[in-house]
Amino acid sequence: MPRIKLVIEYDGSRYHGFQLQLNANTIQAEIEKAIKSLTGNEVTIHAAGRTDAGVHALEQVAAFTTCSSIPADRWKYALNSMLPPDIHIIESSLADDNFHPRFNARKKRYVYQIYRAATGTTFYRKYAWCTEESLDITEMKAACHYIKGRHDFRSFCSSGSSVKDFTREVYKCDFQEESPFLKLEIEADGFLYNMVRIIMGTLMEVGRGHYRAGYVEKIIAARDRRLAGPTAPPQGLYLASIEYENINMDSTL
Amino acid sequence: MPRIKLVIEYDGSRYHGFQLQLNANTIQAEIEKAIKSLTGNEVTIHAAGRTDAGVHALEQVAAFTTCSSIPADRWKYALNSMLPPDIHIIESSLADDNFHPRFNARKKRYVYQIYRAATGTTFYRKYAWCTEESLDITEMKAACHYIKGRHDFRSFCSSGSSVKDFTREVYKCDFQEESPFLKLEIEADGFLYNMVRIIMGTLMEVGRGHYRAGYVEKIIAARDRRLAGPTAPPQGLYLASIEYENINMDSTL
Repeated sequence: MPRIKLVIEYDGSRYHGFQLQLNANTIQAEIEKAIKSLTGNEVTIHAAGRTDAGVHALEQVAAFTTCSSIPADRWKYALNSMLPPDIHIIESSLADDNFHPRFNARKKRYVYQIYRAATGTTFYRKYAWCTEESLDITEMKAACHYIKGRHDFRSFCSSGSSVKDFTREVYKCDFQEESPFLKLEIEADGFLYNMVRIIMGTLMEVGRGHYRAGYVEKIIAARDRRLAGPTAPPQGLYLASIEYENINMDSTL
Repeated sequence: MPRIKLVIEYDGSRYHGFQLQLNANTIQAEIEKAIKSLTGNEVTIHAAGRTDAGVHALEQVAAFTTCSSIPADRWKYALNSMLPPDIHIIESSLADDNFHPRFNARKKRYVYQIYRAATGTTFYRKYAWCTEESLDITEMKAACHYIKGRHDFRSFCSSGSSVKDFTREVYKCDFQEESPFLKLEIEADGFLYNMVRIIMGTLMEVGRGHYRAGYVEKIIAARDRRLAGPTAPPQGLYLASIEYENINMDSTL
């Protein structure tokens, strides 16, 4: 049976995250429902990242196996005709039989968007962390230096996670200023639960002057969630792209 | 009794337009309800422009007269604490007793936003006209030339309007390309019902090559709605700013 790979863009505002939950509106439920409407069969889709409620995706990757004869590249159109307007299939293609979007991922990239202006917040309230606080961006950029590299990121992991190994390698962690936006781009071989949002919350504490950039090194070394900053709000976070062997997907947010 | 002037930003997506309607969610109803919660009194607010369902505002202007002792500049904070997050008071100030946002307006400026990309439409579907059509933008810019100036704009007015005089003076009508956005900025001494959306729909027909720029001159001369293009969708339209005697309000969308 063919295995279909989907690249999915979604506005997470209305959803309780990607993953299926009982009695809750989720991205996974919407896509599985659309597949069932098209084929009559129940399928389970597997995704690269389980985004939380309110978190968005520019290029989430998911896959499912189907007995349907719909050609791989037509799934995009078939699903888009059934899906609500806040979920959009960007691409559908044939994958290897054993392709798993999560286990086969080599790198994931997230973007966290901050919106800094007195006006316009009405339009960005669901798509950015809107704040007019004055921030020391030079110091925030300096703090990014300590995040990069291979570390035990236990200080940046919410409780409730079942992982045993907290070591991850961060390849990229940089701010871009595109006034009135401030964007954090972070790429790693994997992420812990709420890792990007806790890193963002911690970098904001640096921006506010609550501690200096160098203190981030101490937070990492402590392996204690209580030392890091608060978890940044979900609406600024975008799962931006996922890299696989011989496949490089990119987006421009 | 003091007359309070409000400058209002709103996301029109959830509303049946600005103006009060029976059994419909409107911006006016939300603001009047908030004023009543604060003062206990029923008031009627008057606005500069009656935006349609789905149309947004960067700087709508409204005014109301109240017996409340809330200082003029505090109304902003008081109302924002009561209003839903898609309506935001940018400024509140004391106005002349006889200030009328609509009748005293000298110029109004609208922005119409088109989003031209295969991805990202999930996030802009309520905030722009999303289309991937190929457009002859040079020809669209040339057509703007015919819109500018003092004309009878009957061809660009939806039926259902009660106005007798269809003459308006358009001071500015220009496209800015900020890829992937294409923005039309249009400023006039006043606008007819659906005038900006019909102008936009007509300029799109030019962009598609359905007729040449010069044909817009003939459409104006005909004074016949049937000759103009279709009414562009509401979600791309923003009431951007309103100019009064000695007051110049501006925004940057």
